[in-house]
Amino acid sequence: MTYTIPALDPALAATLQHRIDRKTKPLGALGRLEALALQIGQVQGRVEPMLSQPHILVFAGDHGAARAGVSAYPQDVTWQMVENFLTGGAAINVFARQLELGLTVVDAGVAHDFGKRPGLVDAKIGAGTANYLEQAAMTPAQRDAALARGRELAHALARNGCNCVGFGEMGIGNTAAASLLSHCLIGTTPGEDAEAALALLVGRGTGLDDAGLARKRELLARALVRGGRPSDPQAALAEYGGFEIAMMAGAMLGAAEKRMLLLIDGFIVTSALLVAHAIAPQILPYCVFAHRSREPGHARQLAHLGVEPLMDLDLRLGEGTGAALAFPLVQAAANFLNEMASFESAGVSDKA
Amino acid sequence: MTYTIPALDPALAATLQHRIDRKTKPLGALGRLEALALQIGQVQGRVEPMLSQPHILVFAGDHGAARAGVSAYPQDVTWQMVENFLTGGAAINVFARQLELGLTVVDAGVAHDFGKRPGLVDAKIGAGTANYLEQAAMTPAQRDAALARGRELAHALARNGCNCVGFGEMGIGNTAAASLLSHCLIGTTPGEDAEAALALLVGRGTGLDDAGLARKRELLARALVRGGRPSDPQAALAEYGGFEIAMMAGAMLGAAEKRMLLLIDGFIVTSALLVAHAIAPQILPYCVFAHRSREPGHARQLAHLGVEPLMDLDLRLGEGTGAALAFPLVQAAANFLNEMASFESAGVSDKA
Repeated sequence: MTYTIPALDPALAATLQHRIDRKTKPLGALGRLEALALQIGQVQGRVEPMLSQPHILVFAGDHGAARAGVSAYPQDVTWQMVENFLTGGAAINVFARQLELGLTVVDAGVAHDFGKRPGLVDAKIGAGTANYLEQAAMTPAQRDAALARGRELAHALARNGCNCVGFGEMGIGNTAAASLLSHCLIGTTPGEDAEAALALLVGRGTGLDDAGLARKRELLARALVRGGRPSDPQAALAEYGGFEIAMMAGAMLGAAEKRMLLLIDGFIVTSALLVAHAIAPQILPYCVFAHRSREPGHARQLAHLGVEPLMDLDLRLGEGTGAALAFPLVQAAANFLNEMASFESAGVSDKA
Repeated sequence: MTYTIPALDPALAATLQHRIDRKTKPLGALGRLEALALQIGQVQGRVEPMLSQPHILVFAGDHGAARAGVSAYPQDVTWQMVENFLTGGAAINVFARQLELGLTVVDAGVAHDFGKRPGLVDAKIGAGTANYLEQAAMTPAQRDAALARGRELAHALARNGCNCVGFGEMGIGNTAAASLLSHCLIGTTPGEDAEAALALLVGRGTGLDDAGLARKRELLARALVRGGRPSDPQAALAEYGGFEIAMMAGAMLGAAEKRMLLLIDGFIVTSALLVAHAIAPQILPYCVFAHRSREPGHARQLAHLGVEPLMDLDLRLGEGTGAALAFPLVQAAANFLNEMASFESAGVSDKA
């Protein structure tokens, strides 16, 4: 599969910057919103960018390794939380309602039979991945199916008029998979040994205590002995990925192909982006990094990509909550660009 | 004038915290939004707090010292920007419309005759303050009138059903006044000389170049030689304050009296809060610190108050733009508290 992601037009940047600079405010006074306005304009390839039908995609999947004890919560919580999404009681439901964001929940591979349910997209690749302590988490065919299905979902959103998509996830055990994927794709910095690099990427997830964290580290080190540390994104994804992570990576690539703006949430979503980025680096300028998660590995992922998130609210919930909460800032950036008066139109004196 | 600001009920904090902890999310996973939900509940004295009729008050005023060269922009920009507010073309208009916030512009003392204008509250104390390089910026009577008028405005908002108010300002030269006020009220830390302390509080405002910044520092040092460094908030306000800053301080005190939640913007708004806080320290738990301004003195003000703002977006525009942009986070905090399912109600397993 090759992905055709358009390059951004550098000539447009100068036009957009001039427009930003003539607004009735001191030069640069809207700080990061100005860079965001420039980015949105470039992503859409127009001087008056509009956000339409913003949407959150939440991908859910189970992980074979969850049963080995990499999480503080039992695996059943994945499907129970999907039920919570479907009845509107989770944090992402609350924030999507408040911010008038569309919300689609995708069963990428939960180990539970939901039947046909309104509001749930059945894209199940399998009933949870295999346990990567014993074998590869998924087959190449499953991985390819997950990537392709994700891409399709993003293209369908684009066809329906959405040009801004936030990513979220649910899957007990998925911080562990995100740690392994990130370890494969980030590698080590000069002078750093692999064990130290891994330690920086493994955190408490939903709330492991010290003993639980030590056990998670030990399990992940064992997984790496079995599966190695493939630096190829497709290989790493098959070895350690979750179905929700693979499908999300496909959706990200598909969204960038359609010039959508991507709102990137926390640690797990960023692990999917690492995969997508290793497949097609041109995806990066399409991404808005919503927040810095309290999960410590997120900082390392962001540093690897060379990006700074918009907010730092100590969130570590997932579900796309951080992506949703960043949306008003993204909207504010587009709005000031389109709606503010210029010095000329408002009759305000520029500097003396 | 004494201000009666109710103390928060510590017993309610435990009830609110329990409610937060039973929501379907790992303990603490909503990070700063959880502390915010607790605060909003305590401010309102109820377990199901509701934000109603959120409103931004923008206070405008002119400064006699502006003509001496403390700003990069000519003084006329104050009234020109008020006109821009009235026709809806400024950044704060754009953000208030987007976020459905009420917006009132208050002429606290602009050196311009606006006549009767819809949307503008005429609370003019004088046609700009006196030049603090030569004499006190305002008389004690003017100061008291500004404080009283601000308090009245906040009480009127409360009577109309508003319980959340954001503060903004416009006034060429008002970062200089804010620096002087902050210098008076923060004082020096042990081992620090007054000149070094002042330097930390003086920044480029709307965009002074190096020479302009040096001149601003020199002018403010001269003002301090004339007027001294009164640590009494009322004395400091009369010596260096702006009418917009004084009226804002009164409005903050009045809002806390009515148990409103206060959204604090950047450097100048925080200088008004320093005044209000020195008058009535009980105001502090009513305040949400929206963002950290790029104006360097803001960090020192926040450290003095011992608070961390919600966002850091490199804003330095004023007008209450940061306060407005933080509102969706405040709303999200109240909403998750009221709308999220609990582990019990959603049938989600708590930790294994």
